[in-house]
Amino acid sequence: MEHLEGRQSVLAALRARKRRFEVVLLRHGLHAETTQDVIDLAGLLGVPIRHVDGRELDSLAHGNSHGGVLAVCSAKPRTSADQLLELLDSLSEPPLLLLLEGVDDARNLGFTLRSAESLGAHAVMLKKHLWDFDAIEVARPASGAYERMPLVQIDNLELLETLRGRGLRLLGCIAGVRRTLHDSDLAQPCILAIGGEKRGLSGAVRSICDDFLTIPSRAGSSSLPLSAAAAIVLAEAMRQRANI
Amino acid sequence: MEHLEGRQSVLAALRARKRRFEVVLLRHGLHAETTQDVIDLAGLLGVPIRHVDGRELDSLAHGNSHGGVLAVCSAKPRTSADQLLELLDSLSEPPLLLLLEGVDDARNLGFTLRSAESLGAHAVMLKKHLWDFDAIEVARPASGAYERMPLVQIDNLELLETLRGRGLRLLGCIAGVRRTLHDSDLAQPCILAIGGEKRGLSGAVRSICDDFLTIPSRAGSSSLPLSAAAAIVLAEAMRQRANI
Repeated sequence: MEHLEGRQSVLAALRARKRRFEVVLLRHGLHAETTQDVIDLAGLLGVPIRHVDGRELDSLAHGNSHGGVLAVCSAKPRTSADQLLELLDSLSEPPLLLLLEGVDDARNLGFTLRSAESLGAHAVMLKKHLWDFDAIEVARPASGAYERMPLVQIDNLELLETLRGRGLRLLGCIAGVRRTLHDSDLAQPCILAIGGEKRGLSGAVRSICDDFLTIPSRAGSSSLPLSAAAAIVLAEAMRQRANI
Repeated sequence: MEHLEGRQSVLAALRARKRRFEVVLLRHGLHAETTQDVIDLAGLLGVPIRHVDGRELDSLAHGNSHGGVLAVCSAKPRTSADQLLELLDSLSEPPLLLLLEGVDDARNLGFTLRSAESLGAHAVMLKKHLWDFDAIEVARPASGAYERMPLVQIDNLELLETLRGRGLRLLGCIAGVRRTLHDSDLAQPCILAIGGEKRGLSGAVRSICDDFLTIPSRAGSSSLPLSAAAAIVLAEAMRQRANI
């Protein structure tokens, strides 16, 4: 069982209906109006609510930003390869997937998921080791996007090859190539592969990319942070898709 | 006196020549090739080097990512309003400034400074309270950009009015306006004002904006993180400026 902390996280998870909830804990004396939506939705879904002492909540909570709302529930399930393929079949627009490598920090991953949702990605694919992050640390900066965004674990290149076989182009974002993101067709079905600021994309992923693109940047500066690179490329995809 | 930790941070600060260095500490037994550039530059600038025990370094260091390199030096000086105006006069391209409000985290600020440098901003303006962040926590994710990027403290609207008087347009990035960043002229001299993901831009800054722009996003999603919004708008400015 995991804990979810804070009204926004709990509400997003209840709405997404992907976790099993054991109980929602509310601190005594919280304003009814701030928690009425949580109470209503939990009631609708048959999730028990318990009003508890502030100290009990604090002792259960991981951080100090719960604001009196905490839920005990199952972990958010990963999206399987089959579920991803099903999802892609159901889309009424060209698929836009994000593949992340080399994220070194749970908060960064959370912020990147938030951007990915806001900028129209349909799912995010992550290497296996990224699942070791503390889910609460990822979920908090993601502000609900963690609950809603399908997350798919990649153990090898097989799923990427399957997706390529279905017509998605794998586009690697790397420094120094001539083609910029603005010269790339991001309105077609594609997987945008973004690597961490330290090492960039792995050789394994590069070896199967259909094409590469670069984000123009000032000569002599550091590389862009991964979360910024992902946001910039997704925003460009959104712009191109809106103009079709 | 402050500490700088890690080879990259120390090297960037030595190169930027904005701090006074008391000493550079190197752990006994570090590979000469990894620190030769630090040793050479410190020698050139007359900064003493001391080789110390790993435990002494650990006891001085704030985090554990120093990798055997630490410097004791003055804080990075803020760029004054007058220095900023001088800098703008010296530019051979239209000024591009970034104004940040509502950053809630030192690491986010660091990542945003890194993106700002990479994407061509000439200086970053920050409200007073953001100076309370631990400089080491800001500098580490900024990867040298913290040393190089002019940072200007804003205590009131006076400097913004002065800049507007010099022909820079103050463009507020907010949700829900009709004009997108792509429809905005970002190649002109401008200040891009970005607010935090929780509250957005303050009323005070909005009240003197020359225009507003929005980053298109998927309906019903959370707001973009500040660091992502800044990166997206700066990347669009860079694109427009390259196409002139």
